[in-house]
Amino acid sequence: MSATYNFCAGPAMLPTPVMAKAQAEFINWQDNGCSVMELSHRSKVFMQLAAKAEADLRSLMNIPANYKVLFMHGGGRGQFSAVPHNLLPEGGKADYVISGSWSKAAAKEAANYGEINTVEVVTKTDESQTVLAPADWALSKDAAYVHYCPNETVDGIEIFDIPETGDIPLVADMSSTIMSREIDVSRFGLIYAGAQKNIGPSGLTIVIVREDLLGNARLTTPSVLNYQLAASNDSMYNTPPTFAWYLAGLVFEWLTELGGVKAIEQVNKEKAALLYDYIDSNNFYVNNIDSQYRSLMNVPFWLTDESLNDAFLAEAEQAGLLALKGHRSVGGMRASIYNAMPLAGVQALVDFMTDFADRNKLK
Amino acid sequence: MSATYNFCAGPAMLPTPVMAKAQAEFINWQDNGCSVMELSHRSKVFMQLAAKAEADLRSLMNIPANYKVLFMHGGGRGQFSAVPHNLLPEGGKADYVISGSWSKAAAKEAANYGEINTVEVVTKTDESQTVLAPADWALSKDAAYVHYCPNETVDGIEIFDIPETGDIPLVADMSSTIMSREIDVSRFGLIYAGAQKNIGPSGLTIVIVREDLLGNARLTTPSVLNYQLAASNDSMYNTPPTFAWYLAGLVFEWLTELGGVKAIEQVNKEKAALLYDYIDSNNFYVNNIDSQYRSLMNVPFWLTDESLNDAFLAEAEQAGLLALKGHRSVGGMRASIYNAMPLAGVQALVDFMTDFADRNKLK
Repeated sequence: MSATYNFCAGPAMLPTPVMAKAQAEFINWQDNGCSVMELSHRSKVFMQLAAKAEADLRSLMNIPANYKVLFMHGGGRGQFSAVPHNLLPEGGKADYVISGSWSKAAAKEAANYGEINTVEVVTKTDESQTVLAPADWALSKDAAYVHYCPNETVDGIEIFDIPETGDIPLVADMSSTIMSREIDVSRFGLIYAGAQKNIGPSGLTIVIVREDLLGNARLTTPSVLNYQLAASNDSMYNTPPTFAWYLAGLVFEWLTELGGVKAIEQVNKEKAALLYDYIDSNNFYVNNIDSQYRSLMNVPFWLTDESLNDAFLAEAEQAGLLALKGHRSVGGMRASIYNAMPLAGVQALVDFMTDFADRNKLK
Repeated sequence: MSATYNFCAGPAMLPTPVMAKAQAEFINWQDNGCSVMELSHRSKVFMQLAAKAEADLRSLMNIPANYKVLFMHGGGRGQFSAVPHNLLPEGGKADYVISGSWSKAAAKEAANYGEINTVEVVTKTDESQTVLAPADWALSKDAAYVHYCPNETVDGIEIFDIPETGDIPLVADMSSTIMSREIDVSRFGLIYAGAQKNIGPSGLTIVIVREDLLGNARLTTPSVLNYQLAASNDSMYNTPPTFAWYLAGLVFEWLTELGGVKAIEQVNKEKAALLYDYIDSNNFYVNNIDSQYRSLMNVPFWLTDESLNDAFLAEAEQAGLLALKGHRSVGGMRASIYNAMPLAGVQALVDFMTDFADRNKLK
């Protein structure tokens, strides 16, 4: 089979060397006589694996010592309720910045727990989309926290500047941007990310939380979503998703060997520039997002002649370029180009797009 | 490496043919050009896989049409809160039958949600442990539901008779007994099971729920633990743990080929009889549980001379018999002999135990 490139938004492709290693040691992990997924989470060998994965992530993201790193169940969506369950007092208020589908969904779920002040920051016309600069967001003075989504997977909008929220904790859904570029963790109260984009398979969620925010869960907070319980028990209050944790650890090792987040950020910028520059160079494809807010990870684009959509997708798949269909809510195409996507994959996509445009312009 | 047998209580061993198949197709699943874990959960091929896994489980357990089967996040522990979140009205009462560590933990968490009537059913002395027959349990007349744990993984106590609760829904934590023996699903309102014993890797939870119990979740129930949302969205309201779902599907296929639950029940009875009969045949090892309530899946046993514990464990591991250490709360040893454990594994354990006893009696 020839090389394929998988542009799925998530569950997304994992680094090729990681998958090769996981396959090789799938049945007998480090000569333990069984798979890593058949080990007790409380066995010494698994605890070592778990601790190393955490240490590697801390190092990659330069996570300060006063932050806990939690490996949880429930996906990014689980955090839509875990955040208010743990951080929003009964009768309290939180700010939710709305920049696309996922931040909107987070705000909707949070509204079950208290007063939610939504702050819309995207301006859309048929021709363009832009975002209000974080410095100009109309945030409350008395919110328990401010929630935003720095990268909107569906909409392809990324907010690079970190809002300044003073003493109010800043909470970020980084599911599709974590480890793709350097960020200053100390600016955040809490960061969460479903694993299935830049970390590992689905079913694992990473939470990075400042210690002073622990211990405030509601009585009705499920124990599996309780940050304090997870923190006090090294994320083993219940059996964690061990195989996903292991794969995440391999991804952290892979990224460390590549030079870390700083190094992959350069590759990510190069990949994104290659694709956006090509899209902007012609009238066959379009991406209408303000260039300052274009996502490095998720690149939606539309064919000017949408009657060609089906042919584009079918031919792309034949060329080994998988999962390019856009999210149903926005249509068109979407190329998710997470850390695991090599530059060669984006080049192959641009080559195909060029060829497809050439062939179809002539008709 | 010589054959090893893994007696871990969970995450537990998976069937050898399942692991071999998963390894072979790990990188390129069914010629899709990527791993099954790199596919969108909403792709046609994954949806087919998911539907087949559900159909196979329905067939294996003979699940009536008026029950939904949900593939959820959060492990068995997640259900400790999901059950009251979905089934216990504010101000309502539920009965929790206490037969060991896990039912006790479930009752403890449920107490955050309402009035919990605990019903202790185990009688313990230094010499023996027995269980009150379900017909004699002092259940309430007005409980929203009755919760029990038919097999206590830590304690090695299994309750084979299903309690009769009339119109009150019966809820069972079947994490360590699901698919090990035939049960009449129609007797239950809800069954749940963490996957990591008889189903697949950790991180997946199966919920089987009668349809009339859906739709009563509290406002503050996290969407990822909301049965109605899971049921209405084919367990894809959020991204499910796709690789675990896939492995569960392979386990269901494996069990179906073996002849289903009826066939494996015979093997399980044979395995358990082999081990218990040997333990009872000598004074070197002891299991003090009433033979009517001995678990088919988790066999705790103690060395009469506990000073030999460390030697027993070290020599067992050298003999390829892994993870036999008992749970810290009860000490001694524990052999978990789930569906995936072949009779040969139990025979190897009995042979080792015999040899160890012979050698150490002479000293």
